[in-house]
Amino acid sequence: MTAGAANTAVWHGAGRRVHLQEVGTRDGLQMEQAFVPTEDKIALVDALSATGLAKIEVTAFVSPTAIPALRDAEVVMREIARRPGVVYTALVPNVRGAERAIEARTDELNLVMSASETHNLVNLRMAREQSFASLAQVVATAQGAGVAVNVSLSCVFGCPMEGDVAEAEVFGLVQRFADLGVGGITLCDTTGMAHPAQVAALVAAARARWPGMVFTLHFHNTRGMGLANVLAAIGAGADRFDASLGGLGGCPYAPGASGNVCSEDVVHALELMGYDTGVDLAALLEAARRLPSLIGHDTPSQIAKAGRRLDLHPPPAELEALRARALAR
Amino acid sequence: MTAGAANTAVWHGAGRRVHLQEVGTRDGLQMEQAFVPTEDKIALVDALSATGLAKIEVTAFVSPTAIPALRDAEVVMREIARRPGVVYTALVPNVRGAERAIEARTDELNLVMSASETHNLVNLRMAREQSFASLAQVVATAQGAGVAVNVSLSCVFGCPMEGDVAEAEVFGLVQRFADLGVGGITLCDTTGMAHPAQVAALVAAARARWPGMVFTLHFHNTRGMGLANVLAAIGAGADRFDASLGGLGGCPYAPGASGNVCSEDVVHALELMGYDTGVDLAALLEAARRLPSLIGHDTPSQIAKAGRRLDLHPPPAELEALRARALAR
Repeated sequence: MTAGAANTAVWHGAGRRVHLQEVGTRDGLQMEQAFVPTEDKIALVDALSATGLAKIEVTAFVSPTAIPALRDAEVVMREIARRPGVVYTALVPNVRGAERAIEARTDELNLVMSASETHNLVNLRMAREQSFASLAQVVATAQGAGVAVNVSLSCVFGCPMEGDVAEAEVFGLVQRFADLGVGGITLCDTTGMAHPAQVAALVAAARARWPGMVFTLHFHNTRGMGLANVLAAIGAGADRFDASLGGLGGCPYAPGASGNVCSEDVVHALELMGYDTGVDLAALLEAARRLPSLIGHDTPSQIAKAGRRLDLHPPPAELEALRARALAR
Repeated sequence: MTAGAANTAVWHGAGRRVHLQEVGTRDGLQMEQAFVPTEDKIALVDALSATGLAKIEVTAFVSPTAIPALRDAEVVMREIARRPGVVYTALVPNVRGAERAIEARTDELNLVMSASETHNLVNLRMAREQSFASLAQVVATAQGAGVAVNVSLSCVFGCPMEGDVAEAEVFGLVQRFADLGVGGITLCDTTGMAHPAQVAALVAAARARWPGMVFTLHFHNTRGMGLANVLAAIGAGADRFDASLGGLGGCPYAPGASGNVCSEDVVHALELMGYDTGVDLAALLEAARRLPSLIGHDTPSQIAKAGRRLDLHPPPAELEALRARALAR
């Protein structure tokens, strides 16, 4: 399909497959104050597995002192029920994390670095070159064990400190990871700076340059453009998106604003437009509505609050009396 | 421009004009518990006038006991500073309201009825035929005074009690108002049930059938699809949108969910995509950020919280120390 044809038809999914990848259990829970009990995490992943999501980022194999919320990574990854067809991925920051993840039978390792030098320094305490060198070792470790690798590049659509990040910076990193044999790249809008015109252009250019690479788009709804960005990416041929149950996973630069695009909101919209997400929205919503009791606060999910568009409300009991009074006037 | 060409280019505004019509001062404030003092309302409209918005729905000429929040309609409409090029509109429910609005030098009367029989009964306490007959008198009154008329049709994209509303119901009403000589119709997604595929189809059909009619689209972000719906409508040729400062104006059917699409969020997104909204976003944001002190609570605005995409954050003071430590490892 040409980019033009995809663009014209973007409002009408016509059964096209879009793969939804859940990041709430990692990207969401790592930001929460409350420690979600291990058995609740396992139950949540199992519930998500049953909804038809393509991939679930289960946890992160990081230092338990750095991210205590995910200190139970091994137990969670070992005890979830593996559903055939679902890819269970986990964030790993270094070779030690990769070894732990592989030992716990993680299907795919998700590596992270930033396309912005400043963001990489602030967030990962390394220069980008240092991160790349470290991640190259992780890639080698994974390849040695026959485990798949995905690299998530942060701040691809802008850095909250540097501003715009040049396409050359982003594509230079994509090329270097492609050269290492990495098969999946996630283009992350880490703080919600992406807009549809930019997304359409960048996705089209990336797909044209690396036709064999599996690209995922990771958007935040911080500035209300999340769904529009998903659609612009689809228009440019993308078909894999990260999303977070309940929209969990805020941004430290925008207190009170939304975080990751919300899984149930994205599935609801795409299914209405005729896309095939493979996801059972009712089951996903059930999981989403249990979230507040796990994390101790409300979520930014719109569908959890408002219901699906055809979750109707009964007319008032006095409707017929109203009608009679109206017609009698 | 054909619908197909517009669709292909929807992510790239390329300087195309989109008219933004502010409804917060009416649709927003009427739902607020707090009575915003008359002089603050006037100052708010004056501030909005200076931003470049195409139209402002200033108030409603309704019964002061029905909507006490807008009981100062006459004073507000008389005392605002009229800016050339801005259309000052007001909601009027009946001939009495029309006479008051005309007396107060309102540029345009905005009439409302629902495309859903149940919603019309519940919301307006009339059958649709009764509403139409009553509004026909208002149209005649306005025409007698040489004042423009716009008709806002509620629940065009779905009714929270009935579900889908047939296109024939909507278009039957459009035709009857067109036959009365009404020049403007607003297609309202009153409770956020619209989705982009539906919007693209309905807008294209409406524009094809009534090429001389000025159509406005009125979307709510209740289910997170507000901006996507705006873009789908633009793709089908629409160029006029209602929006509400701060996203004011909730929906009684979805407590806690967003209301009207937020003016500053829509302007921010469209300007980034290269559309010409004519709006000074900095001035609009200044007005939006004063809203919480007027209404006594936070608003759903995303841009008011997160800032514009290039409102950057300073890197931490210790950045160079971080870099030095990183590179020394």
